[in-house]
Amino acid sequence: MTFRAPVRDLAFALSAVGHDALLARAYPELDADTVAAVLEAAGAFTTEVLAPLNRRGDIEGATYANGRVTAAPGFADAYRAFVAGGWNSLSADPEHGGQGLSKAMELAVFEMVHASNMAFGLCPMLTQAAIEALTLHGSERQKRLVLPKLVTGEWTGTMNLTEPQAGSDLAALTTRAEPDGNGGYRLTGQKIFITWGDHDAADNICHLVLARTPDAPPGVKGVSLFLTTRRLVEDDGSLGAPNDLRPGSIEHKLGIHASPTCVMLFEGAKAELVGELGQGLPHMFVMMNAARLQVGVQGVAIAERAFQQALAFSQERRQGKAVWSADYPAAIYDHPDVRRTLMLMKAKIEAARGICLTTGVLTDIARLADSEEERAAARARQELLTPIAKSWSTDVGVEVASLGVQVHGGMGFIEETGAAQHYRDARIAPIYEGTNGIQAMDLVGRKLRMADGAVMRELCAEMLLTAEGLTESAELAAVGRALAAGVAALERATGWLLANGGAPSLAAATPYLTLAGDVIGGWMLGRQAMAAAGSDDPWLKSKGALARLYASQVLSLAPGRADGVCQGPDDLEATPAHALAG
Amino acid sequence: MTFRAPVRDLAFALSAVGHDALLARAYPELDADTVAAVLEAAGAFTTEVLAPLNRRGDIEGATYANGRVTAAPGFADAYRAFVAGGWNSLSADPEHGGQGLSKAMELAVFEMVHASNMAFGLCPMLTQAAIEALTLHGSERQKRLVLPKLVTGEWTGTMNLTEPQAGSDLAALTTRAEPDGNGGYRLTGQKIFITWGDHDAADNICHLVLARTPDAPPGVKGVSLFLTTRRLVEDDGSLGAPNDLRPGSIEHKLGIHASPTCVMLFEGAKAELVGELGQGLPHMFVMMNAARLQVGVQGVAIAERAFQQALAFSQERRQGKAVWSADYPAAIYDHPDVRRTLMLMKAKIEAARGICLTTGVLTDIARLADSEEERAAARARQELLTPIAKSWSTDVGVEVASLGVQVHGGMGFIEETGAAQHYRDARIAPIYEGTNGIQAMDLVGRKLRMADGAVMRELCAEMLLTAEGLTESAELAAVGRALAAGVAALERATGWLLANGGAPSLAAATPYLTLAGDVIGGWMLGRQAMAAAGSDDPWLKSKGALARLYASQVLSLAPGRADGVCQGPDDLEATPAHALAG
Repeated sequence: MTFRAPVRDLAFALSAVGHDALLARAYPELDADTVAAVLEAAGAFTTEVLAPLNRRGDIEGATYANGRVTAAPGFADAYRAFVAGGWNSLSADPEHGGQGLSKAMELAVFEMVHASNMAFGLCPMLTQAAIEALTLHGSERQKRLVLPKLVTGEWTGTMNLTEPQAGSDLAALTTRAEPDGNGGYRLTGQKIFITWGDHDAADNICHLVLARTPDAPPGVKGVSLFLTTRRLVEDDGSLGAPNDLRPGSIEHKLGIHASPTCVMLFEGAKAELVGELGQGLPHMFVMMNAARLQVGVQGVAIAERAFQQALAFSQERRQGKAVWSADYPAAIYDHPDVRRTLMLMKAKIEAARGICLTTGVLTDIARLADSEEERAAARARQELLTPIAKSWSTDVGVEVASLGVQVHGGMGFIEETGAAQHYRDARIAPIYEGTNGIQAMDLVGRKLRMADGAVMRELCAEMLLTAEGLTESAELAAVGRALAAGVAALERATGWLLANGGAPSLAAATPYLTLAGDVIGGWMLGRQAMAAAGSDDPWLKSKGALARLYASQVLSLAPGRADGVCQGPDDLEATPAHALAG
Repeated sequence: MTFRAPVRDLAFALSAVGHDALLARAYPELDADTVAAVLEAAGAFTTEVLAPLNRRGDIEGATYANGRVTAAPGFADAYRAFVAGGWNSLSADPEHGGQGLSKAMELAVFEMVHASNMAFGLCPMLTQAAIEALTLHGSERQKRLVLPKLVTGEWTGTMNLTEPQAGSDLAALTTRAEPDGNGGYRLTGQKIFITWGDHDAADNICHLVLARTPDAPPGVKGVSLFLTTRRLVEDDGSLGAPNDLRPGSIEHKLGIHASPTCVMLFEGAKAELVGELGQGLPHMFVMMNAARLQVGVQGVAIAERAFQQALAFSQERRQGKAVWSADYPAAIYDHPDVRRTLMLMKAKIEAARGICLTTGVLTDIARLADSEEERAAARARQELLTPIAKSWSTDVGVEVASLGVQVHGGMGFIEETGAAQHYRDARIAPIYEGTNGIQAMDLVGRKLRMADGAVMRELCAEMLLTAEGLTESAELAAVGRALAAGVAALERATGWLLANGGAPSLAAATPYLTLAGDVIGGWMLGRQAMAAAGSDDPWLKSKGALARLYASQVLSLAPGRADGVCQGPDDLEATPAHALAG
């Protein structure tokens, strides 16, 4: 159950996706040593403070009583230590008290936070989303009185979107915001699935809430974004009276038991508008996009944690004779099927990590590059990759956590072993912040069609260049060929989707996202393998082995997946639900 | 949460895998109407008696106190109703009180038992395994005094194999059986993971236990099979004194909470030898093979249950605008991505069901055919298919249960919804009765090599004939082409494995099993689609749609999967565990 912070993996992965170059041009005060020092320190904090709480948090969970939520045992103290260590403000603007590090580094640090304790990590993750929203759209007062408290983490943030009848479809939400006559509003309504909606770990909780004003038009154009706080904020920044809002209950969930998932009741709560009236959804999407990428990182994180536990077990557990060991009983790591499983887990983790960190670096370039042209190009690719980073990585999280249980055999099914918790925790990530199906629809319906498909085509062209480079290396030629074939399949599927919008695209959305993630993940592994080539260090040598395994087990499926994309929706359309029920 | 017994699906699936022909030649007294009546009655029992206990069994579970296990609330009464209904003895020999139905029909009935309540189904499933062992290897006394009680279900059975140091490797077990001087034995040792090892639902519990006699050689040749009972059995068949055995504790598990998983302590328990000394493993494999096929059926069952719940939710839940509905909000079934998900779930269920029922029919033919040649051919194919039926179907169980959670969105992660229980329950099936990795090793190491590969080659030839037939139909030509390509890939992978034994085979075992299951599953769907062709009934029409979807989404991957099989083990062999740890 021991967590080992994957500092070396993260530093290498950052380097392989261009983070060094980003630092050189945009963060002249940061060098590789500083990056390493920050990762090491984060690794120590997550290992020593957060990881030991993970199991107890699962067993005891957050609790609800008398209208208040109490965080799981030890979580409030850990959160205060997290804030005191400055971990909440890594990428925030120094102007608001942040440390001004790159988004990509912050993601790397948060991978360790989520891996050590996913339920804990959700609290600062939501705060970050609130920081994004107020940084871009907050009023002068909000930026002066609220934003700095969120940046330090003294106060925490939440996103209040979902209502019972309005989940994926936010146009259906009904929470009301009535003007109070003094420039403020009163919020009335019920929100559900509010992560860390209430707790006792911080002095105040800042809720960003989607609601409708009385004269607003129906649909999404009538939705605005509001800020309301558990305790009112006086003009001098001090805490005032409790606001008229409260948690109604918390959910009994499959996993992440230490993350309180609240029903929030707004009973005339005092609130302020954030940004412009009727712009609630666009403003909220600023938060959603950052959160989506973070959820992708959670997928990587829970997979890494499950992998570590399975790898350790495979070395300790001895059973039978193995072809790759003279010992009897042999460590099960020496059984080929177990070793293949573990290496495939690791390969998928590194592929997903590469996709998420690449998206992080693009976020930084989109903000920091000198020319608008370069910023726009980076932003477009970041937008293209965000749904893939979220969905593909969280699918990997579930798959790897399931394989982690399997490696343990019967012990994996026993809760005390801990592998089962990862399998339970991992399952939420494909659901929240927009289900993976919603992400896939976003990919084929909006992102892919940006610039008539040029963003994906340019990515494919760049991946083909990598494939050519790989093919020139004797050791990696098989990876190059598989990547080239994968890119060709992705181009074929892309062309079909661009020519077939509407139902054909929507029916193919998830198969296409899987194909894209498989291929882009192979690109990530190919680049890592090239960066590691020629070394005798066993860890660096394994990068080539992982890329070759991924090429034969995953990239090889790409042509078939493209066939699945191009099938067309006629059979789906012609099949009513009662035909499936028998 | 309502369970709907899939009677029509099962009757159709039985028919498509040759059960009618089996009945005509071997069960002249059984006709289609009798089959339908039995399935209907089993459907009513599972729906009315077992399904309502499933959720409460998950929440409250079996309990352990003062050295005894108490079944979950309602389970003991339900078990007695199960016995009273005659459901325990469907395929047992009438000579021992059984009803003499086909194994395939028994599997169909048990699919409904497991789907309605998987934790419950384990109890009679283990009893069946004990019935198999005593029928084939029991002494006259065991057949006279114990077997009839197991057949009716008045007493239940268990399999005692695993010890802490001996899981997949049964050669390492250490439980001792000392001769008592009167022809009997005394058992001493500890067994773990004993399903329904103790409970209060039946009058007696019969444990089949692997143990070593004092002079036995080391390794598997020193292992013998023993029968010991919770209460001693007097020579007149009445119950005697309690035996010196007891449950030490029950496990706290991820799922199947109502199935008590016991540590069993044998403290000089009186026991009898079953079969021959030193033949414990071969005798136990009789039980294991039947149990493995039943576990495959559990995979189908939990997938069916998860599918039903997701399909119902998709019709009730309304969200957003959908291309295939004029309603706003539309049922989410009318969103193409949700519909594709549900149809793929259904297609995989039908593929797995076909594989399991085919294996069941082969079991019957292997027992009942007139000529030894035909019996041997059926037995060989049954042996080939058993590891595929077990592993591929249980992988489908986990995958479909996970998709079932996903279809529910946020509600899927809330325990009250019930989808999460299926995801938790499903996870044990790839582990117990031999992990899926062990099954894959059995497939490539033993089953595939029977008759130098002829058993698989003949299966491939038969599948190709079906593919040709499909290709002649305009509606199903795409299925035929995909199946032919899949069979070609399977033949290529088979040839490679036959030419590359040892580590290359072991490293490729799981990818090969997945490939074989994917292709054979496609064969099953193709045969169902042919049987249903030409009808206007929506349910029958959907068989073609499901086969085409499976062809484009699953069979299309077969060539890539074959590449994965043929990769070779060099990279695995060259990668030590520390190279993966960083």
